[in-house]
Amino acid sequence: MSELIAARILKGFRDFLPADEAKRRVLSARIEKVFCSYGFVPIDTPALEFSEVLLGKGSGETEKQIYRWHDNGGRDVALRFDLTVPFARYIAGHRSELPMPFKRYHIAKVWRGENTQRGRYREFTQCDIDIIGMANAASDAEILIMMREALFAIGAAPLTIHVNHRGLFNRFLTRMGIEDKLIAILRTVDKLSKINRTEIEAQLTELCGWQNTAQIMDFIELKGDWDHVLLGMANLAGGEDQDTKRLREIALFLNDSGIENGIILNPSITRGLDYYTGLVFETFMDEAPEIGSVCSGGRYDNLCALYTNEALTGVGGSIGLDRLIAALESLNRAENKSPYAFCAIACVNEAHFGICQRLAKQIREAGFSCEIYSEAKKLSSQFIQAEKKGTCFMLIPDIDSPYTNDLTLRNLSTRQDKRCSVEEAIKIFSAYPLAGLKGV
Amino acid sequence: MSELIAARILKGFRDFLPADEAKRRVLSARIEKVFCSYGFVPIDTPALEFSEVLLGKGSGETEKQIYRWHDNGGRDVALRFDLTVPFARYIAGHRSELPMPFKRYHIAKVWRGENTQRGRYREFTQCDIDIIGMANAASDAEILIMMREALFAIGAAPLTIHVNHRGLFNRFLTRMGIEDKLIAILRTVDKLSKINRTEIEAQLTELCGWQNTAQIMDFIELKGDWDHVLLGMANLAGGEDQDTKRLREIALFLNDSGIENGIILNPSITRGLDYYTGLVFETFMDEAPEIGSVCSGGRYDNLCALYTNEALTGVGGSIGLDRLIAALESLNRAENKSPYAFCAIACVNEAHFGICQRLAKQIREAGFSCEIYSEAKKLSSQFIQAEKKGTCFMLIPDIDSPYTNDLTLRNLSTRQDKRCSVEEAIKIFSAYPLAGLKGV
Repeated sequence: MSELIAARILKGFRDFLPADEAKRRVLSARIEKVFCSYGFVPIDTPALEFSEVLLGKGSGETEKQIYRWHDNGGRDVALRFDLTVPFARYIAGHRSELPMPFKRYHIAKVWRGENTQRGRYREFTQCDIDIIGMANAASDAEILIMMREALFAIGAAPLTIHVNHRGLFNRFLTRMGIEDKLIAILRTVDKLSKINRTEIEAQLTELCGWQNTAQIMDFIELKGDWDHVLLGMANLAGGEDQDTKRLREIALFLNDSGIENGIILNPSITRGLDYYTGLVFETFMDEAPEIGSVCSGGRYDNLCALYTNEALTGVGGSIGLDRLIAALESLNRAENKSPYAFCAIACVNEAHFGICQRLAKQIREAGFSCEIYSEAKKLSSQFIQAEKKGTCFMLIPDIDSPYTNDLTLRNLSTRQDKRCSVEEAIKIFSAYPLAGLKGV
Repeated sequence: MSELIAARILKGFRDFLPADEAKRRVLSARIEKVFCSYGFVPIDTPALEFSEVLLGKGSGETEKQIYRWHDNGGRDVALRFDLTVPFARYIAGHRSELPMPFKRYHIAKVWRGENTQRGRYREFTQCDIDIIGMANAASDAEILIMMREALFAIGAAPLTIHVNHRGLFNRFLTRMGIEDKLIAILRTVDKLSKINRTEIEAQLTELCGWQNTAQIMDFIELKGDWDHVLLGMANLAGGEDQDTKRLREIALFLNDSGIENGIILNPSITRGLDYYTGLVFETFMDEAPEIGSVCSGGRYDNLCALYTNEALTGVGGSIGLDRLIAALESLNRAENKSPYAFCAIACVNEAHFGICQRLAKQIREAGFSCEIYSEAKKLSSQFIQAEKKGTCFMLIPDIDSPYTNDLTLRNLSTRQDKRCSVEEAIKIFSAYPLAGLKGV
């Protein structure tokens, strides 16, 4: 016998067992259904692209994490590490084929060779939405409204979306004369939820002195309702301007649309990445803040600049599906519907398999999954097998007259039997709200 | 202005525009719905694995095509080139966590750096099903029945599934005393649909002489109904045995399940790969034979042998989604439903965007996608924009009283207007059979 190969997988990568994969598929389908309902359309891009395209001007952090190599043709290629950069390339390349404004979603895997920790993987799924070619407050509001609904649809509520405006923060720093330190300050403030306040103050003081630091702390620690915080921010930034007007418009649209809470103004939200120019947001689940932001995004004024001279504004957001599932599981809030068949047909005579397919067809066409057992084991052991898989009902055909519609229906949870026709069985199944097949 | 990066993608890779991606998602969801309805469960595995695991004993062909490199940690890694090898590794690694028989499906992308041609890409989607741990004819039949239904569900009919039994072919060669040339003969016969008969004969003669070649040609060119062909095969192979019994059982199950045509016995089908041991099949669309097989598979007796000493029998099949879509498109048979919103709300006053969200919510909850326009352009240009996207209806709110339920509904195909409430509009939408949201 030749030596075996170890059936191992790479660190940070995962196999999904049926129950987990089924759950991922259900959550992803619910998110997608919300995106579709708003008129957003799906796109897809290659997993593999030219490294030059993905890395652009490159940032040290990304270069370290990206999976990159030379393919057999000697091309410098890499796996996508997010869905935003490929989207910018996509827009530049397909500009003339897309309607503007262009509202798209993209649900797909991305790869980063980063250090693994709880809820962090080297292969994970992102659910991105963006509106390109529309600069108004309505688009900002729509991203927030739609993301909130998608998160509600998968049971992530109660949650709070923390909103800020990058332009207003920039204006505030400019007023103090320290706008040249913008990026470093942003990155420091961004850590507020991760490291403690004193440490942030120390880092800021080193960057821009204690007087500026005191003002920055005043600004980022403003708390209260939207109007109150906005007033405070305006005062510290030197009065009203386009940015404060934008935040007022967004608030109006949210209110008008019927959202009364769960979206707050939080001046400490900056999003570390430097391409945001307007709205920025992060989302925390009220019962699992330790898991970090499960959905974030913002407005960027010229994301496609690397690939085209045409200026294209955009606003978007991204749900980290894996982190969200980890959070739902830690809260015991993930649904645990069995991925296996709702109903099964027992095998009483192995020669009747084909006839059982006819019976199963009726059940499947009525919208219920139906597995056919094909080994004539003892009925009791078939029941046990079905119970283990979470199957709810078992139909037992007549051993002698397979074509007869006089069946035994066993309820596997109550262990009660009942004589019935297949039509009657389907009627009984219809009382189970989660029994139906998901699908087109 | 800094130099632009060309927005190009790698040869053999594809961007999917919204209409194409929406079509792929619908077809994939329909296939998945069939798989689920039979009680098959989803799994997923990493895109990236240890090269050792994916290549196993390796075949020259695969090694040339695989995307393989050393990651930042110095590990020899590769992208999966099919879903079968990762599945064998998965079974070996998770044996104790899975019920037996285990019936799974896996719909995912795979990567091969092969030469590009029509319908051949370097990144493509496979839809695989397998039953592990069940050796009977019922499992063979179920794979054929389910694949046929999945192909029907996406409009690939009329089609013909060509079935053969590898064991019977082996027995036939053994009887002639040329079983040592099995693999070479299989690979040659497998080319019958691609190169001409004379060429096959010449290659076979070189392999095993003209007398054997004449017999092989007689065998693989048997034609007619299942029973007739089976009788001929049995005669040439030396009589009845387990293999002919198996083919009779499969035929019985297919007939009993109500399948009367479209599945034929074809002794020339061998499937080039050498791991098949029993049933083998290929599927051709009757109207697009030139596209080649769109679904194939078979029984393998010990696929997991590389990773575990436990013997596990299996039978499965795979749909090549990309090739199938290419075929449907060449036949003009692909559905061309617009991926954009079914209905849109016109913008008559930009300040009313939030209120329009309430209106849209009612429509979305009734199961119709609804986009909200947010720029107060001329109505005529909003109509044109919506028409271009394939939107069917536009609702025009009252410019002065946004909260009133007295709306104008414009049918964008007839260009007729009608006053109605949102409830009346929804009633009108319900008459459109394909308008609803797909989803959970």
